[in-house]
Amino acid sequence: MSTAINTVILGASGYTGAELLRLLQNHPRFKITALTGDSQAGKPIEAVYPHLCNRNLPALVKHTEVDFSDVQLVFCCLPHGTTQEIIAGLPEHVRIVDLSADFRLHDLAQYEEWYGHPHRAPALQKTAVYGLTEHAREQIKTARIVANPGCYPTCSLLPLLPLIEGKIIDPDHINIAAMSGVSGAGRSVKQELLFTELDGGVSAYGIGKHRHVAEMEQELTAATHRTYPPRGLFKRAPSHSTILMDFTPHLVPMTRGMLATITAHTGDQFPNEPTKREEAHACLTARYAQEPFVTVLPLGQSPSTHQVRGTNQCFISVHEARTGDKLILVSVIDNLVKGASGQALQNANLMFGLPETTNLELTAVFP
Amino acid sequence: MSTAINTVILGASGYTGAELLRLLQNHPRFKITALTGDSQAGKPIEAVYPHLCNRNLPALVKHTEVDFSDVQLVFCCLPHGTTQEIIAGLPEHVRIVDLSADFRLHDLAQYEEWYGHPHRAPALQKTAVYGLTEHAREQIKTARIVANPGCYPTCSLLPLLPLIEGKIIDPDHINIAAMSGVSGAGRSVKQELLFTELDGGVSAYGIGKHRHVAEMEQELTAATHRTYPPRGLFKRAPSHSTILMDFTPHLVPMTRGMLATITAHTGDQFPNEPTKREEAHACLTARYAQEPFVTVLPLGQSPSTHQVRGTNQCFISVHEARTGDKLILVSVIDNLVKGASGQALQNANLMFGLPETTNLELTAVFP
Amino acid sequence: MSTAINTVILGASGYTGAELLRLLQNHPRFKITALTGDSQAGKPIEAVYPHLCNRNLPALVKHTEVDFSDVQLVFCCLPHGTTQEIIAGLPEHVRIVDLSADFRLHDLAQYEEWYGHPHRAPALQKTAVYGLTEHAREQIKTARIVANPGCYPTCSLLPLLPLIEGKIIDPDHINIAAMSGVSGAGRSVKQELLFTELDGGVSAYGIGKHRHVAEMEQELTAATHRTYPPRGLFKRAPSHSTILMDFTPHLVPMTRGMLATITAHTGDQFPNEPTKREEAHACLTARYAQEPFVTVLPLGQSPSTHQVRGTNQCFISVHEARTGDKLILVSVIDNLVKGASGQALQNANLMFGLPETTNLELTAVFP
Amino acid sequence: MSTAINTVILGASGYTGAELLRLLQNHPRFKITALTGDSQAGKPIEAVYPHLCNRNLPALVKHTEVDFSDVQLVFCCLPHGTTQEIIAGLPEHVRIVDLSADFRLHDLAQYEEWYGHPHRAPALQKTAVYGLTEHAREQIKTARIVANPGCYPTCSLLPLLPLIEGKIIDPDHINIAAMSGVSGAGRSVKQELLFTELDGGVSAYGIGKHRHVAEMEQELTAATHRTYPPRGLFKRAPSHSTILMDFTPHLVPMTRGMLATITAHTGDQFPNEPTKREEAHACLTARYAQEPFVTVLPLGQSPSTHQVRGTNQCFISVHEARTGDKLILVSVIDNLVKGASGQALQNANLMFGLPETTNLELTAVFP
Repeated sequence: MSTAINTVILGASGYTGAELLRLLQNHPRFKITALTGDSQAGKPIEAVYPHLCNRNLPALVKHTEVDFSDVQLVFCCLPHGTTQEIIAGLPEHVRIVDLSADFRLHDLAQYEEWYGHPHRAPALQKTAVYGLTEHAREQIKTARIVANPGCYPTCSLLPLLPLIEGKIIDPDHINIAAMSGVSGAGRSVKQELLFTELDGGVSAYGIGKHRHVAEMEQELTAATHRTYPPRGLFKRAPSHSTILMDFTPHLVPMTRGMLATITAHTGDQFPNEPTKREEAHACLTARYAQEPFVTVLPLGQSPSTHQVRGTNQCFISVHEARTGDKLILVSVIDNLVKGASGQALQNANLMFGLPETTNLELTAVFP
Repeated sequence: MSTAINTVILGASGYTGAELLRLLQNHPRFKITALTGDSQAGKPIEAVYPHLCNRNLPALVKHTEVDFSDVQLVFCCLPHGTTQEIIAGLPEHVRIVDLSADFRLHDLAQYEEWYGHPHRAPALQKTAVYGLTEHAREQIKTARIVANPGCYPTCSLLPLLPLIEGKIIDPDHINIAAMSGVSGAGRSVKQELLFTELDGGVSAYGIGKHRHVAEMEQELTAATHRTYPPRGLFKRAPSHSTILMDFTPHLVPMTRGMLATITAHTGDQFPNEPTKREEAHACLTARYAQEPFVTVLPLGQSPSTHQVRGTNQCFISVHEARTGDKLILVSVIDNLVKGASGQALQNANLMFGLPETTNLELTAVFP
Repeated sequence: MSTAINTVILGASGYTGAELLRLLQNHPRFKITALTGDSQAGKPIEAVYPHLCNRNLPALVKHTEVDFSDVQLVFCCLPHGTTQEIIAGLPEHVRIVDLSADFRLHDLAQYEEWYGHPHRAPALQKTAVYGLTEHAREQIKTARIVANPGCYPTCSLLPLLPLIEGKIIDPDHINIAAMSGVSGAGRSVKQELLFTELDGGVSAYGIGKHRHVAEMEQELTAATHRTYPPRGLFKRAPSHSTILMDFTPHLVPMTRGMLATITAHTGDQFPNEPTKREEAHACLTARYAQEPFVTVLPLGQSPSTHQVRGTNQCFISVHEARTGDKLILVSVIDNLVKGASGQALQNANLMFGLPETTNLELTAVFP
Repeated sequence: MSTAINTVILGASGYTGAELLRLLQNHPRFKITALTGDSQAGKPIEAVYPHLCNRNLPALVKHTEVDFSDVQLVFCCLPHGTTQEIIAGLPEHVRIVDLSADFRLHDLAQYEEWYGHPHRAPALQKTAVYGLTEHAREQIKTARIVANPGCYPTCSLLPLLPLIEGKIIDPDHINIAAMSGVSGAGRSVKQELLFTELDGGVSAYGIGKHRHVAEMEQELTAATHRTYPPRGLFKRAPSHSTILMDFTPHLVPMTRGMLATITAHTGDQFPNEPTKREEAHACLTARYAQEPFVTVLPLGQSPSTHQVRGTNQCFISVHEARTGDKLILVSVIDNLVKGASGQALQNANLMFGLPETTNLELTAVFP
């Protein structure tokens, strides 16, 4: 057993913090030396999460109380907006996996547009790597700050990126209907998150305006490498230098789990026409053949979020659309694992030269 | 109080039968004189549904045991495929609301393609009216057989038809992601419908192949009245004389409720360009202003299935898509009420000259 | 149609207020003339409950804005503790059904012990009738203030009172394990009521200390009419002039519904020994034979809360205990209907000389 | 790493089989060499459980196809009644953890009474150890057949046994109300286990007759070591040589989890009167201080099943009853882990000299 890597979780009192603590149990290298939670500082973690009572974890402290001089790794689970300044204040030797949205958008103007205020650590922002592990592995290994992707972007980009890179689908006409479990909203105490308001029903929210759209468009655009405007499928103003997409999230009465149903066009302007689901399936299967956490299902099957509950897996299926020029892709993850804390650990493992799967070889909790 | 209209429910042991019994309690005219359930014949209804123990309802009998000579109204809640022959055997004076799919498709070839066998009552099929009440009211009043629409078609067509008739959206590029509560699958005893298999997760199913697509395409096509092929948005073979659409249903861990998220194109070949969500909203609001069971929400709101639970209501909202040439429509119903038994009663009320809202003025069961 | 009875709901923004609005739809006599909600005053009710958007209800106002001069009936759905003074300020001619706990305890010392402060309207308290309808019908008819019972007391007392009055069970050894849906906690915005904290699990709470114990003990004591101390089953101090009982409530991941599993002793000091479940069953069956809202199931059956969901029914079953000297009783209600707003309407119907079942003849919403 | 212990799971297609496969992932010694499932033989395990698709597990075979000559360990997850003969046919060198009820009852007459047929392997029955790990550790280490306890008995006996052994509670007056998640019923395809029949409601079942009562009474009796009849609390026939208890299980709309609320008398015939909750709490705390899987909560707290979801933990709390001569104990487990497959692995670890906690150090899946 090698030496311990001292690890701090900032914002450990939220759900992603609790999930990190689950996944870090008995980690061979990452040793938790401090947990912060400013509003709960002074309490033992089991006062906030009784299920953690058997873990001999440090009590919650304010982040200003932590001595970072001997800390190598920080998982930052703070809310969006509060993270930038805190990370900016960490010593240079500390490496960071940030689960908030603060360092995900490379373009500062985009950040300001979506989050409503200028970025407070613009220099640091430039150094951050967008940590969709399977698509940024080499950069992650050496990054100081990894911006851990949002849950919807993780679930959507994993099936989309290889098909865009392979020119199998048209990046300009992507339409996603996604469904999330309620834990995606965090532990916020709001009327609309009460059991009684959610059990037994479903709703759409943030239609066309969910902030995760910005991340997805950024990554889809980066995947295209092509000259705009595209060859005129629908008219778009030439000023559209980025991909735009339609995205409608839904809140489903379940605690964990996320499913994205993606409609992607395979227009005839693409050289490899006629595109078939077989081709898309082969592309995805080949791309992810060696990936431990992405599973492309055999044609004819489609996944359920139950199948990845509690795991770092993404299951993907490919289907013909009834209208001939499109594909339907279905992708599922556990929003708290591959969509948050699991991918964060996957990234941290990479950053410290450990096997990427360390503490992440998990079988779904089913039923 | 006028004279009773003797009413029989065929297939009363299924969920739509039970729901009809709920809605028919204290109905001023429809008097239940027989309930059939061939496999449960001889049992009191409370042996099958204990919650009906206080209703003094007739015991279940085989449908062959019913004397239809004095019956005026039959609700047929039998499974698809078994219904045709039974209805064909009913005396001419009996009027029928059929909740199965058997009489919904006017084109017998379509029926055979989707249901896998030739229609067994083709002459009767020609006389059936597709009973989406708000769009076929006059025909329903005089129909002998009303084919009650499926739940997904009801939820989807109510927002779509006025926008197609108003040439606000392109009928050729409709994409629907829909979510249903589990009662939509009926009381079938199947492993995949067990509580343990469904609770806490979500999945897509029947991707591109759900039988309700046939009904929707039939009704959308009827609403277009236009010359094919369309003016070339995407290439389609001229032989496409019907609308094709993309439809992906999802199974959500809730008992009742259905939500359709519809992406509709407002392409620039439409004369009333630039189409705006305001225009669509105005069109729908005007169309349904006098309808007791369709509510178009103010712009900026979107509905939840909780808001219509237990009621015959459809709530609709209209949203801008992020990509400029589309609209997002959200529509919710209770799949067992407006999506099945409630609309059946609405239709029966009409057929017998009663106020359409009789026994259907219900407030949602919320929370 | 007779003249309208002007009706006000105080505290209409809580769940019991919303449920009253559901049950009052199309009531033949009670006409809603004002809805109060101090913190939401000025908003239309659909801003608080979107499902009520079609009802043409008055907007929410502060209770001080209501002119009570022409009001005959008030349903008071305010939180415990705030109700006393508000009711004390209502004009004498107004009759009140109070859904809070404020007027349920006759003994002011008991009130102070359980609720932590002296009663603020002690004179009025003396005039209030404890409104368990089936056991106080005549008093309710003429009462000015009806203290509507709590949900747990309603569910527990309906099976217990006849058996105590019939000396079939020993009132001193009653043990109840009860399970409630989450709506029993109201619309309070608390972390422990979030969907994520409750879905998929169960817990006990308020063990031995739930305030509803006080009501139950009061009513059980009233039902005994006997000299204390009892004949020494277990030792109790002679000062125990009231029945004491064990009561453990549990929070179950469902929105509505309540079940009480009651263990009652049939000790050999009772004259009618050997007591049998048949005797208890006969007693309950006879007692409730004419009651529209209490159903005693045939021996061998037991109820589910699904069977009464959305209705004003209480279903009761009687079982042998494995140990020979006890009975197990199971009782279910919908906590928001018979446990709150339904019983409130039942009482109001009685108070105004209307058929008790007016607007309460409902079939369960199942599935 | 030492040599592999070849391991077979009989009946791997049920939920306890699937849960064992989850817990055995990456087990350092137990190597799965065969999975049986007679009705599904020939299928890969992922055809039955898609979430197991990434595990490189052997396909399902009939149990008659397995060569047991090189097998050291069998987990038997077959249904009750079918297990006896199959286990009787296994070679002598194979050690067995049986998750069915077949070998739990030492008294063959009791077995016949509760299970309706004579035991088919009476000689083997005598050799089986009742595997409540914390109370039979030494016997388990050397047992050939460990009869893994039922979920309700595990949840109930862990808090009860130390208090009986310590003469703190009266074994003759134990009353349990227990609540189980639906997975306790297995993957049986039955109408009453459909999502639509269970979601949103709760019911009691098997009142006074659940087969787990037999196990509990057996173990409680063994814990007493005393002369009957007891000193006359209630009259019992002297022929009662075993403890009798009252037990009412309830089915709760959740997949996993089990809670037992236990009322236990601390009658004055016990020498250590006056018994206090402090004494009981101290007794349990001391008894389980070194146990890795039993946690006694501090006084004033009570557990939720969420806190042990997915883990092998039992959380216990102790409470005063309102009536002075009783205690209320609350105990929670995950019915599929400590109540089934987790305890099975704990036992197998012991049987093969491995650390008991191997592969069982798990943090709860919360939220």
